[in-house]
Amino acid sequence: MSRDSLINAVRSLGVDGLLLVGDSICDADVCYASGFLSSDRFAVLISDRIYILVSSMERYRALAESRADVVETTSDYSMRSKIAELGGLEMAYANVIEEFVSARGIARLGLRTNTPAYLYRSLMEHFDVVLLEKPLEKVRAVKTPEEIAAIKDVQRSCESAMAVAVQLIRKSRPSGEMLILDGTPLTSERVRRAVELRLAGLGCETLDTIVCGGLMSSSPHSRGSGPLPPDMPIVIDIFPRSKSSRYFADMTRTVVRGEPSAEIMEMYSAVKTAQDAAMGCIKDGVSGADVHEAVCRTFDDLGYTEREERGFIHSTGHGVGLSIHESPSLSEHGEMLRSCNVVTVEPGLYYPDVGGVRLEDLVVVRENGCDNLTAFERELVIR
Amino acid sequence: MSRDSLINAVRSLGVDGLLLVGDSICDADVCYASGFLSSDRFAVLISDRIYILVSSMERYRALAESRADVVETTSDYSMRSKIAELGGLEMAYANVIEEFVSARGIARLGLRTNTPAYLYRSLMEHFDVVLLEKPLEKVRAVKTPEEIAAIKDVQRSCESAMAVAVQLIRKSRPSGEMLILDGTPLTSERVRRAVELRLAGLGCETLDTIVCGGLMSSSPHSRGSGPLPPDMPIVIDIFPRSKSSRYFADMTRTVVRGEPSAEIMEMYSAVKTAQDAAMGCIKDGVSGADVHEAVCRTFDDLGYTEREERGFIHSTGHGVGLSIHESPSLSEHGEMLRSCNVVTVEPGLYYPDVGGVRLEDLVVVRENGCDNLTAFERELVIR
Repeated sequence: MSRDSLINAVRSLGVDGLLLVGDSICDADVCYASGFLSSDRFAVLISDRIYILVSSMERYRALAESRADVVETTSDYSMRSKIAELGGLEMAYANVIEEFVSARGIARLGLRTNTPAYLYRSLMEHFDVVLLEKPLEKVRAVKTPEEIAAIKDVQRSCESAMAVAVQLIRKSRPSGEMLILDGTPLTSERVRRAVELRLAGLGCETLDTIVCGGLMSSSPHSRGSGPLPPDMPIVIDIFPRSKSSRYFADMTRTVVRGEPSAEIMEMYSAVKTAQDAAMGCIKDGVSGADVHEAVCRTFDDLGYTEREERGFIHSTGHGVGLSIHESPSLSEHGEMLRSCNVVTVEPGLYYPDVGGVRLEDLVVVRENGCDNLTAFERELVIR
Repeated sequence: MSRDSLINAVRSLGVDGLLLVGDSICDADVCYASGFLSSDRFAVLISDRIYILVSSMERYRALAESRADVVETTSDYSMRSKIAELGGLEMAYANVIEEFVSARGIARLGLRTNTPAYLYRSLMEHFDVVLLEKPLEKVRAVKTPEEIAAIKDVQRSCESAMAVAVQLIRKSRPSGEMLILDGTPLTSERVRRAVELRLAGLGCETLDTIVCGGLMSSSPHSRGSGPLPPDMPIVIDIFPRSKSSRYFADMTRTVVRGEPSAEIMEMYSAVKTAQDAAMGCIKDGVSGADVHEAVCRTFDDLGYTEREERGFIHSTGHGVGLSIHESPSLSEHGEMLRSCNVVTVEPGLYYPDVGGVRLEDLVVVRENGCDNLTAFERELVIR
């Protein structure tokens, strides 16, 4: 992100400053605004400049690593004596924050709606507080070239991990109702572990990984367990995050080891066509709703008309960045797409008695189309 | 944790119910109270029973996996039509939460001080809200046998990863000012990557790992970078979390490849003695402050009297569980220890012109002493 676009975004909110408090591992806004990675809570104030307030132990790291213009520490505001004086950590911290904000001459203070209640309650007494729902959503959705490069980098790792999964399934042999590799059943757990090990080796972490075979694959959020079957779809959905850049990537492939049914082959072909249709209409100025509509229309034309409980039961895609799900959304109420948005394109079809098929690529919205950040074949049957 | 002890803990807070809202990846209280793992926000109400409110997509998984007595979904409270009606996701969610809580006949509602401001503001209008700072801290500090088993399990993985680090350093050869392994410098980054790869293979994730050599080791929170030196201390601090149980473990060793200085050998011996002194006095009914005092006294007796900027500059230890730092604390203001607390015991000495030494084990407090969950040698010089 560009520092100036962040400052301008806050200015446009009609407040003198926006205060964020959180740790940058769990709080993507804090990570975004500070560029500073810490599992300890700290504060970021975006006003005429970017100010951060960290513990004194973090001072030098913050000076070296954060994108803040000004780094201050809780010791600068006598945190220790305030704890003794006010009789509690949170009372003291709220008091420190109040002085940290006041020092910038701020009257009208923006706070996110998810600000901790004790801070909200305390800051309300000193400032004209405005609660804002996701105030940085829009600025975060438009990625800089550096952010796109970081996401692309994670997608490379994602592809490498996908190749590991596909290779294990390729090397396995059908035996009755399960796939066997090196004498033991090839399970969801075994493939997931191999995928996550590859990702760890590439400096990525995962919340989870979907490796889901057979009829279970008709439930799009099943993570999968037990032996993987031959002749049935196996959905592999990998969404790693770089431990250093903190950006996510996301991709899904569906494969079959053996002979898929005619129904699955047709579903796969339809999903591919729907994905191509979405790609074909994504560009700056088109809405996420339009893209979703194009996918729905494609499915309708091919006879897949159901949208609840079975058929195409989820949205077409979502933004990806420092959060795995962020703006913009490719869905019924999807907002206008803008150049440099990064979104997944992931149509799928799900039938409890047949199985599920999903294909997911990650693309960058451009003025006249989109760039696909994903370079991985779409082949249903692997041999 | 035991379900009943959680319900009793909430009863003792003087409220009719305690409401937690958060995701169970980032929010340890939510993970603890629900036993349900989800990266999506959900609500837990602890009252006469444990109630959870999840999205309808999570219903079956919550029924199967959570420890709640009652599972409800946002669809049960018409979330979708409320979004349209009230014009926003958070407005709708606050309204759903209000009905979810009201349905239990609750008047006096406990909320954590870190409850999102929009919920606090909205719930205040309907309930007699009491803001509570870390209301589950004490109950979480006393571990059940199952929790202790889970932590021990992670500590086994931690030891396995420590063995990887030590083995790499052992196999390296001094060459000038750096250690060389397989023809290239053995760096902090290389050891860290090997440690994290082993942990990933064991189903663990890491926020970070300290591998810090030379004079840099005198800064206890430096993660370390660049080539590791011979004849100087290398501090290795590993604190993984199980991706499945969500419990952490924590351990530190300090090693030297080559010949340590006399100063480092004496510091190592003092830290070992201080650690033994702490272990010798930990038991139910002793305070964390007493344990810390015993460590300080040991260091004083051995001539290491400095406590600020150099010498023994941090506390003796902290509780470990679903958070890497939790109650009780072994420090100046450390509270009373109770049977089945799990705490680190990690004295250290740090001198900018000499280097740092730290040893950290993880122990369970018992009625008449403590059980060490750590089985890893304490040897400074590795050959």
